[in-house]
This record gives sequence, structure tokens and C-alpha cells, in this order.
Amino acid sequence: MIAKDILKAHLSQIITLTEAEFDYCFSHFKLLSFQKGQTLITAGDHVESEYFVVSGCLKSFYINEDMKMFILQFAMKNWWTADYAALYNETPATISVDCVLDAEVLSITNREREKLCKEIHAIEHFFRWRTNKGYVATQKRLLSMMNNNVRARYEELIKQYPDLHQLLPKTLIAAYLGVSRETLSRLYNDEK
Amino acid sequence: MIAKDILKAHLSQIITLTEAEFDYCFSHFKLLSFQKGQTLITAGDHVESEYFVVSGCLKSFYINEDMKMFILQFAMKNWWTADYAALYNETPATISVDCVLDAEVLSITNREREKLCKEIHAIEHFFRWRTNKGYVATQKRLLSMMNNNVRARYEELIKQYPDLHQLLPKTLIAAYLGVSRETLSRLYNDEK
Repeated sequence: MIAKDILKAHLSQIITLTEAEFDYCFSHFKLLSFQKGQTLITAGDHVESEYFVVSGCLKSFYINEDMKMFILQFAMKNWWTADYAALYNETPATISVDCVLDAEVLSITNREREKLCKEIHAIEHFFRWRTNKGYVATQKRLLSMMNNNVRARYEELIKQYPDLHQLLPKTLIAAYLGVSRETLSRLYNDEK
Repeated sequence: MIAKDILKAHLSQIITLTEAEFDYCFSHFKLLSFQKGQTLITAGDHVESEYFVVSGCLKSFYINEDMKMFILQFAMKNWWTADYAALYNETPATISVDCVLDAEVLSITNREREKLCKEIHAIEHFFRWRTNKGYVATQKRLLSMMNNNVRARYEELIKQYPDLHQLLPKTLIAAYLGVSRETLSRLYNDEK
């Protein structure tokens, strides 16, 4: 499946566009290829674009003063990623995005997305739906973090990333769950 | 200022509606009054509506298996609140909403909001903007929770709720920050 078809199938889960409308939308995206380890956004950057993942896997992460990494999201096929605070508020990035695996993405700038949303009502609907989903998922994760429910976060990870969690280095999984490697090993052992 | 004018001023920060359009939108809202301590949503409820706060203060919160309370949000004038996961996914509420102070709200059902979004492009734009804001705020809070940066969360609370944080019982502030009363006292003392 080529990038264009993947985006088309993704949009058509929520909205209906004519061929001409979709072609017009698609003309605002750029296809980019990255290798494992390459960086799309570095903290401090001016952020102009967001990314729709066509293949591979990205991660968005935050590094604190002690150089400890926290993973906000793994983004695989059909996921969107960026530093949204930076993108929407036009502030420097505090979140970085890089490739966990070789990846192909479709990028669109904030300006072009806003233009499309204004021009095509259905596109505005799509992006509202998408942010609603991101919002409730993040709220859920915040609550499980406040509740310190590591087991719930681990189960959520397996549910959200059924294929991925077995491919990922344990260090990254621990950084996503916000736990030490030791706590993670205990979770793995409990499962057996 | 009456409820209608408060909602109008709030919408007009982001979108432009004609008088007729705004009146039409407004006809989909219901004005409700609650007293301090009254409940709008209880965990387990079927959730049909979201609430725009006209006056007073609500809180949305989660209670875990050990009956410990975590506060997701305080909602004051011009804030929106609900259990959005329950509202969007049509699942039973896991989050409760009640009144910290006497409150007046404008309620709108999920179905009516979706109808308005479909009928009036500008309304869809407004709700996308609003969710974008909620999404980045929740992401920021998630990161500061993962990073265990209590000081940053406390400063964010003062910034977000400049008037409120002095009115609130310390127990509620602790439940918002996800810390013990003792840790909170230390933050207060550091400030002096």
C-alpha cells in the first residue's frame, strides 16, 4: 500500500471526501523517509510540521534536567505525532521526536493544516475527532500516572501497541511507563 | 453579565458568528444551577452532556480502589468540563464532577454539540481549538507527573488558577498535585 492510500484509508474511517477533495488535501503533504535513530524534532527547535506515520515507528520524548528520558508516545502506522504544544502555541519545542525503527511519514505544516481545515469542513471535523481521541488517551494516562498504577499502564501499553511492545528495547518501555528497569522486569515475570 | 453574554464573549475570542447563528447555538444549551457539594456526574453514570461554567467552580475527579481521590481539573468561569472519555466513547463514567463552590453552568448534550458542529463550520472550528488546548495542557501535566516535578505542577496550578488556589481547601490542592498534605505544606513554606 502506498502512502497516499494509507492516508486515504485513515481519513475515510471518519470522513467522506470526493476524489478531488482528497487529492487536493494530499497535495499539502510531503513524504519523508528516515532511518532508525534519525531525529525529526529536537527540543528547542522551532516546530512547523506534524507527522502522519506511514510505516515504521517514531517516539516522542522529553528529557529532564537530570538527562532522564520520559516517552510520551510511540507513533506507528496511522498515528500522528509532533510537539503539539510547540506547534499550536508557536513556542520552542520541549519534546523531541525520533525514529525507533526506519520510518516513512507524511508531513504537513501547521499553516497548511489550518488552511485545509478552513477550506474543507470535513477536514476540520477529522482533526477535531483526532484531537478528541488524543485528549482522552492522555487524560487516561495522566490518571494512571497519578494513581501510580504501573500494572494498568503496562496493560494499556500492550493493548495500544500489541505488536510493538515485543520489538521494543526494555529501556524504552520503562521510559514510557515511567518506571525503573527493575520494576519492569517484575511486570514481565508476573506475566509468565 | 448573564450566562448568554458570557458564552458569547467566550466563543467570540476564537470565532465570529452572526447574531442569528449565536442565538441558534445558544438555544441548544440549558442553564443549570448547583450548590456547593452537588454532583453533576458520578462514576458509573451514563454521560450525555458537557458543561460550560458560567460562575462558581466545579472539579472533575477520580477515586481509586483505595478510595483515594485524584483531581483532574478545576473548572471555573469559561472552562468546559465533563468525563470526555465517557462522553465521546459512550462508556460509563469513570470520572465524577461536582461543585467546589455554588455554580451556574450551561450544559449541552453530545448529540446537540455534534449537530451544531455539523451545521456550522465555525462551531466545529471552536471545538477543535478547545480540544487542542485541553490536549496540550493534559500532555504538559502528564510530563510533569512522570518527571515527578511537584514544584513545577504547583507553579502551573498558581498560574492556571491565580484566584482559586487561595480559596481552595489544601486537601483539594494536594489531590490535584498528586502529593501528600505534608509535601504540600513544604511547598507553601518554601514560598514564604
